[in-house]
Amino acid sequence: MTRTIELYDATLRDGMGGGGMSLTAQEKLRVVRRLDRLGVDLIEAGFPSSNPKEQELFELLVAEELAHAQIVAFGMTRRRGVDAAEDEGLTILADSFAPVCTLVGKSSTLHVEKVVRVSREENLAMIAESIAYLVGRGKRAILDAEHFFDGWAEDPGYALETLSAAAQAGAERVVLCDTNGGSLPLAVMEAVAAVREALPDLPLGIHCHDDTGCAVANSLVAVQAGATQVQGTMNGIGERTGNANLVTLIADLQLKLGHDLLDTEQLARLTETAHFVDELLNRSPNPAQPFVGRHAFAHKAGLHAAGIRLDASTFEQIDPALVGNRRDVLVSELAGRGTVREKAAAAGLHLDDEAASRIVERVKQLEHLGYQFEAADGSFELLMRRESGAHEPLFQLESWRTIVEQRADGAVECEATVKVWIDGERYVRTAEGNGPVNALDRALRQAITEIHPHLADIELVNYKVRILDETHGTQATTRVLIDASDGRGEWGTIGVGENIIAASWQALVDSLEYGEQAGRGAQRPESAVDAGERP
Amino acid sequence: MTRTIELYDATLRDGMGGGGMSLTAQEKLRVVRRLDRLGVDLIEAGFPSSNPKEQELFELLVAEELAHAQIVAFGMTRRRGVDAAEDEGLTILADSFAPVCTLVGKSSTLHVEKVVRVSREENLAMIAESIAYLVGRGKRAILDAEHFFDGWAEDPGYALETLSAAAQAGAERVVLCDTNGGSLPLAVMEAVAAVREALPDLPLGIHCHDDTGCAVANSLVAVQAGATQVQGTMNGIGERTGNANLVTLIADLQLKLGHDLLDTEQLARLTETAHFVDELLNRSPNPAQPFVGRHAFAHKAGLHAAGIRLDASTFEQIDPALVGNRRDVLVSELAGRGTVREKAAAAGLHLDDEAASRIVERVKQLEHLGYQFEAADGSFELLMRRESGAHEPLFQLESWRTIVEQRADGAVECEATVKVWIDGERYVRTAEGNGPVNALDRALRQAITEIHPHLADIELVNYKVRILDETHGTQATTRVLIDASDGRGEWGTIGVGENIIAASWQALVDSLEYGEQAGRGAQRPESAVDAGERP
Repeated sequence: MTRTIELYDATLRDGMGGGGMSLTAQEKLRVVRRLDRLGVDLIEAGFPSSNPKEQELFELLVAEELAHAQIVAFGMTRRRGVDAAEDEGLTILADSFAPVCTLVGKSSTLHVEKVVRVSREENLAMIAESIAYLVGRGKRAILDAEHFFDGWAEDPGYALETLSAAAQAGAERVVLCDTNGGSLPLAVMEAVAAVREALPDLPLGIHCHDDTGCAVANSLVAVQAGATQVQGTMNGIGERTGNANLVTLIADLQLKLGHDLLDTEQLARLTETAHFVDELLNRSPNPAQPFVGRHAFAHKAGLHAAGIRLDASTFEQIDPALVGNRRDVLVSELAGRGTVREKAAAAGLHLDDEAASRIVERVKQLEHLGYQFEAADGSFELLMRRESGAHEPLFQLESWRTIVEQRADGAVECEATVKVWIDGERYVRTAEGNGPVNALDRALRQAITEIHPHLADIELVNYKVRILDETHGTQATTRVLIDASDGRGEWGTIGVGENIIAASWQALVDSLEYGEQAGRGAQRPESAVDAGERP
Repeated sequence: MTRTIELYDATLRDGMGGGGMSLTAQEKLRVVRRLDRLGVDLIEAGFPSSNPKEQELFELLVAEELAHAQIVAFGMTRRRGVDAAEDEGLTILADSFAPVCTLVGKSSTLHVEKVVRVSREENLAMIAESIAYLVGRGKRAILDAEHFFDGWAEDPGYALETLSAAAQAGAERVVLCDTNGGSLPLAVMEAVAAVREALPDLPLGIHCHDDTGCAVANSLVAVQAGATQVQGTMNGIGERTGNANLVTLIADLQLKLGHDLLDTEQLARLTETAHFVDELLNRSPNPAQPFVGRHAFAHKAGLHAAGIRLDASTFEQIDPALVGNRRDVLVSELAGRGTVREKAAAAGLHLDDEAASRIVERVKQLEHLGYQFEAADGSFELLMRRESGAHEPLFQLESWRTIVEQRADGAVECEATVKVWIDGERYVRTAEGNGPVNALDRALRQAITEIHPHLADIELVNYKVRILDETHGTQATTRVLIDASDGRGEWGTIGVGENIIAASWQALVDSLEYGEQAGRGAQRPESAVDAGERP
């Protein structure tokens, strides 16, 4: 498919500039797979060796086969007064496997003179020689023209020269960046149109920040003025007020401006992909986020809802299913019996109508309490098994207890005791751990691995805690998510409660019970965590 | 002051359509006072008697003397086939004290025919007669032309007729509403410009929703095309994806487009007013919100921070003080002694060079362990005090212990014991809680409030847990952030450790020690909630 607009995701680099944003290399790899599956064209992975984490990511990415997306390595133009081929940063980019390299260069005279403190000529040479070096090393090179719109306001002639320098050196595209995010739509449109006219053969991109609340609009009008690449981040994460929200941009470009970007199936993954990234970052998805938010297609009862029954177009800008969202927030995502039965069939379960209805009801109750099964496929499958009578518990719980203490000598000690019954026999086991949940996990596994030795292989790879009602301080409800793996599949489980330890216990038990199930089953369908992350 | 643009706040009516938004009449009155103090022109208070709460609000408002703002009562055009003077809704509006009435009327043929199901002529008569009735009763009347932009796309001639009908009947203004929020900037601009040309004498307003992520931009381009009133809500709250954010609009219109709206003092209240509304609604202010968010002017140390010291305009779109926000150079391992000394001075501490260096070193060590002081100003100040010798601990810890157990009968129980020394005396206290940290908090406060009774007033308003290295499962390092408040100020503290309880204990102790400090301090900055509510 030849696209009219190239989609460039900057979540893993620019997006990480936001406060509290951090992903491990493995998590970034999972994001890359999801973005590829969504249909993004270019994925900016970062600088190949600014730190060990980036190095690890690039090592993981070399081995990865993506269906469509290409990986972009990100760096800077050469240092002043250094030969491009001698510049360490540039050689690292050139040596990386990434087929595309984006270099940030300055387009603003203020920055050239006050921040970089080089002459205007040296700045042009830095751009041209850096691009030429990478092109000579076989890379597709893109210039991110930093502070372009401020530079345009200061000295449009020089700003254009920086773009020409890149183009003449072989850059396949230059990207106009509103780095400080202070621009408004009409000014952006005017500048892009003027560049378009001055440099008609040079493909342009647009990179905006949301400091005026206009990052999406600025990107859209730039496209309308001739830009053919949009850069943004998932859910608009990024430094200060964030980057342009690529999720919103994809929907606007395709559904409003008629660009042919994603196929129907890919577009329908927009909501789940957006939520996936939020979950990895341990952020609550913004319910008011355009297109994909939980409230984006919510309707109050009365006139609106009546209008929708008559003709959805009266009160809805688009059909929410197009982006994988749904109309009514009050009804859970799994609310339909049809959906539940589909999920059950995928897990090898047959449900009658009555069981499906019971599950729908149960999910509604649990969601009301704070459960959420989007990232807890393991717990959801166990719920279906329990309701359909197809579940055999691993053990009968008698009781558990954890003790954490800081002793008089300052040492923190932690132990847990579990008392469980398995096949009519009572097991009492105590273990220490570096936290109460770790100690509970160890004690429980001591007991059950005597009967189920393979459960020793299950690794808890991920443990997340979210406070649901933060304004109640330490009395708030707690949601715990655990991801577990047995080396073949990975699954997520959930526990909810006022007491963080009790919520963790629920998720822990589900992790092991699902693992036991998975071990017994001949072959398991891939879990949601794995499903579709691989092309 | 004659303004070029009228600011119309719809927080109390349209804003309440968002999920979970609710304010009492008294709280709405507090919002009205703040909006008046900020300098908003028109405040839409709702329909004077759609329910007892609205009635109570209008009774409160009659008695209120506002410095500048005027109250708007909101209603609908008359029902079909009824005389305007006999329409109950209209007579209630006419009888209310509000000097301005906004009526919602239909501009879309689809809605006229499918939803209201009246003839096009009757719809025009409904608009004209309703406006004429209110004007005859001495009101300033505004038409909110609902679904205007959809109507414009369907049948621009008819959409214009609905506006003319209002104008001819005496409406002082018509407001073009993007009710479904599906419009994009260029289409909005084009439509507004066309209306402007067709009806040159009719003052126009703009009312947008954020379903395409463009509500602010759509409002701005409408102003640029000739609209002279902008409607929006504080922080963009509202149904679905929300309304246009009036906070962002005020800053953009005044600081970017040069409109003379608020005086310097009023504009500097923008941040506190925005946060005030969030606090009343029990929402955490969005740290990424343009202009007023906590991160809106955040800079990581390094090149950016260096650039800012040279010339703030290199990396900042505006001076944050203009909107009452502040620059936040994030305390991080890259922070220099200059930043630390600035922060110390703000806390009333004098640091010599050696102490500043020690603190920089300590911050580096702690960040390496997973601490992060960006959101933990309380802990950072305590750290500075400890390093500078200006800190007196609240107590000497001997030991603490928490026990959480699920008993054989299924009940979860939780208790904590703390053993501390205060002024040479040993206190041993035990308390129960609904989680281990809540129990520790209660036990510790039992002990220390005997000496420091005012610490009983400190409320832990926010408790967040983040697993730093999630891929280590339950063995990962845990970061706990607590926000506490004493009703006057709010502060954040942090604890980090492998053991979640030990990490929570650290943050908890810092919360109370900072609170004690704040209580001892002569005067603390007023909290956002109380400061300046009365005009």
